[in-house]
Amino acid sequence: MEKRVFNFSAGPAMLPLSALEEAQRDLLALPGVGISILEVSHRTPTFQAVIDQAEANLRKLLAIPDNYRVLFMQGGAQLQFAMVPMNLLACTGKSADYIQTGSWGNKAIKEAATQGDTRVAWDGGSDNYIRVPDQAELDLDPAAAYVHITSNETIQGVQFASEPEVGNVPLVCDSSSDFLCRPVPIDRYGIIYACAQKNAGPAGVTIVIIRDDLIDKSPPGLPSMLSYPVVAKGKSLQNTPPVFAIYMVKLVTDWLINEIGGLAKMAELNRAKSKLLYDVIDQCGGFYEGHAQPASRSIMNVTFRISDAALEGKFFEQAAQRGLVALKGHRSVGGGRASIYNAMPAEGVRLLRDFMLEFHEKNSK
Amino acid sequence: MEKRVFNFSAGPAMLPLSALEEAQRDLLALPGVGISILEVSHRTPTFQAVIDQAEANLRKLLAIPDNYRVLFMQGGAQLQFAMVPMNLLACTGKSADYIQTGSWGNKAIKEAATQGDTRVAWDGGSDNYIRVPDQAELDLDPAAAYVHITSNETIQGVQFASEPEVGNVPLVCDSSSDFLCRPVPIDRYGIIYACAQKNAGPAGVTIVIIRDDLIDKSPPGLPSMLSYPVVAKGKSLQNTPPVFAIYMVKLVTDWLINEIGGLAKMAELNRAKSKLLYDVIDQCGGFYEGHAQPASRSIMNVTFRISDAALEGKFFEQAAQRGLVALKGHRSVGGGRASIYNAMPAEGVRLLRDFMLEFHEKNSK
Repeated sequence: MEKRVFNFSAGPAMLPLSALEEAQRDLLALPGVGISILEVSHRTPTFQAVIDQAEANLRKLLAIPDNYRVLFMQGGAQLQFAMVPMNLLACTGKSADYIQTGSWGNKAIKEAATQGDTRVAWDGGSDNYIRVPDQAELDLDPAAAYVHITSNETIQGVQFASEPEVGNVPLVCDSSSDFLCRPVPIDRYGIIYACAQKNAGPAGVTIVIIRDDLIDKSPPGLPSMLSYPVVAKGKSLQNTPPVFAIYMVKLVTDWLINEIGGLAKMAELNRAKSKLLYDVIDQCGGFYEGHAQPASRSIMNVTFRISDAALEGKFFEQAAQRGLVALKGHRSVGGGRASIYNAMPAEGVRLLRDFMLEFHEKNSK
Repeated sequence: MEKRVFNFSAGPAMLPLSALEEAQRDLLALPGVGISILEVSHRTPTFQAVIDQAEANLRKLLAIPDNYRVLFMQGGAQLQFAMVPMNLLACTGKSADYIQTGSWGNKAIKEAATQGDTRVAWDGGSDNYIRVPDQAELDLDPAAAYVHITSNETIQGVQFASEPEVGNVPLVCDSSSDFLCRPVPIDRYGIIYACAQKNAGPAGVTIVIIRDDLIDKSPPGLPSMLSYPVVAKGKSLQNTPPVFAIYMVKLVTDWLINEIGGLAKMAELNRAKSKLLYDVIDQCGGFYEGHAQPASRSIMNVTFRISDAALEGKFFEQAAQRGLVALKGHRSVGGGRASIYNAMPAEGVRLLRDFMLEFHEKNSK
């Protein structure tokens, strides 16, 4: 078998080996069916069992209350950036509040502005997006259609430790890069959405968890594929869904339940993994510089710079020689970024920690 | 290995075995990369080579002229039903002409009506959608924003043998269920779009071939994911694309080029396959009844009824016992339907033909 590397990509990202192995084993034909999951009709009991199990797994892992729907959609978080305001803002006469903690939040508000009025309830841009806001800093409109947050900013490595208090206004959350990384009190949210390609599966499916009462707020006349009511009524089968990507979500959530033991355990593992790297950054202060303030540090994306930027090329090159790849920060911010999603084994993080310590030792003056 | 059946599903549908085998072989790690195609970042040279080759294969197979872009999108044909009028009809003050030859065209015009004015240039509904129109029957508006056709109606099994003449108005075609089944004069079209899950790959990616001059006609303020200019400018990478589905399109088009020998050969094989079944229907006239008129018969979806409807259950059951599955017609029309897309082997069609003859012999009075 081809040797696998430790892939620190921000997404698409590593998947659990056992999920990949099961997909590989059955790729020519599902057992007892004689048809590949890549070929099976979405109108068969075979696929219905897959999507039902994927939903049941998500409900179990996140303890999703009965008054929330789970939708499987396409188009990534970026389509949700537009669909949320299309369904919940346009035609309401209200505006929507956006709490801006990094690049993806900025993209979200820009897309929302095509559909209605938006307000910035807080913006960390003047600090270069190194932290989430304190509750007291938020300038919230109590009449807003919703408040939007990005629970984890993949590019800046800034993550909310808990939900901001937004009163009776629905909280809408782009959780693309920290979905399923820890337990979450779903009932604090109106909508949580996440593309799959960090923690839940491969690129090509987006999971939307939406509270029942928000489903009926959409204005009439939306195209079917852009309407939460149509997707909810069709149980995500109003058209052909991304069958294989949903199958992979089932396999990944099977792994979370059966091999990891749920999200509390997953969160513990993720915190331990991220601590290994943040400890190095803190210990070698002056050599490595973390981007996020400690209280806002992401347990998914560890962002840092090497103070002597001239060393960065060498850092990435030597890391890659050890099978530690895709450590370059996003092109918009530079530096380094270790994305250590659920499926990144602790072993990979330990190897990176060891390499960072060694690199520091060899290259510090 | 699990025995594979002959899957006559209307889509998702059979894929070439060699494409499935290559995907299976490399599923844990792409050779020389050490990362699964399910995990690889879309910003890597590895994936760039995949999407470039998928596009190059499509350009070669369809002889796509240089003044056409090839876009890889999500959301299926149904999202295109809305995107075409969002980009080409809304804000133009014009209306769009729709030629209605079956269920999918009906869905398309309904979605378009959410975005602007539509006109029916012909509707085969009074005949129960058994044929495509003659040129002289078309009531075309020379000032229309575009003319929309469904080149193959999957549910009715009705297919255009050639393009209608629409003058200088752009011809927009939903080719979801006959894409890549035969050579097509691309320069007759403004846009051809197709979901992948019949002839081009698995569910989860939609291919849009669009003429350059139509890309700049979009009104300002469209959400990024719904804007042809944004997707074209981003070369389908304005957000994370459905990486694995595009990889499968590459493998399927590799197979079309290297194993089949191109679309002229593919068309010949498809015509021969469909003739086997239509010949049975014609020979056993009175027992089987074809839905489409002979000149409008689809080479992809062979639709028929058993005159004695009481025999249908037995027909599907006995076929399935021989490994010939998913032959039931769409729930909206009933009867039988054999979807014999590119990847359905001639052997599968011959077995079905033999079964149909035998079933006729045993059950005719």
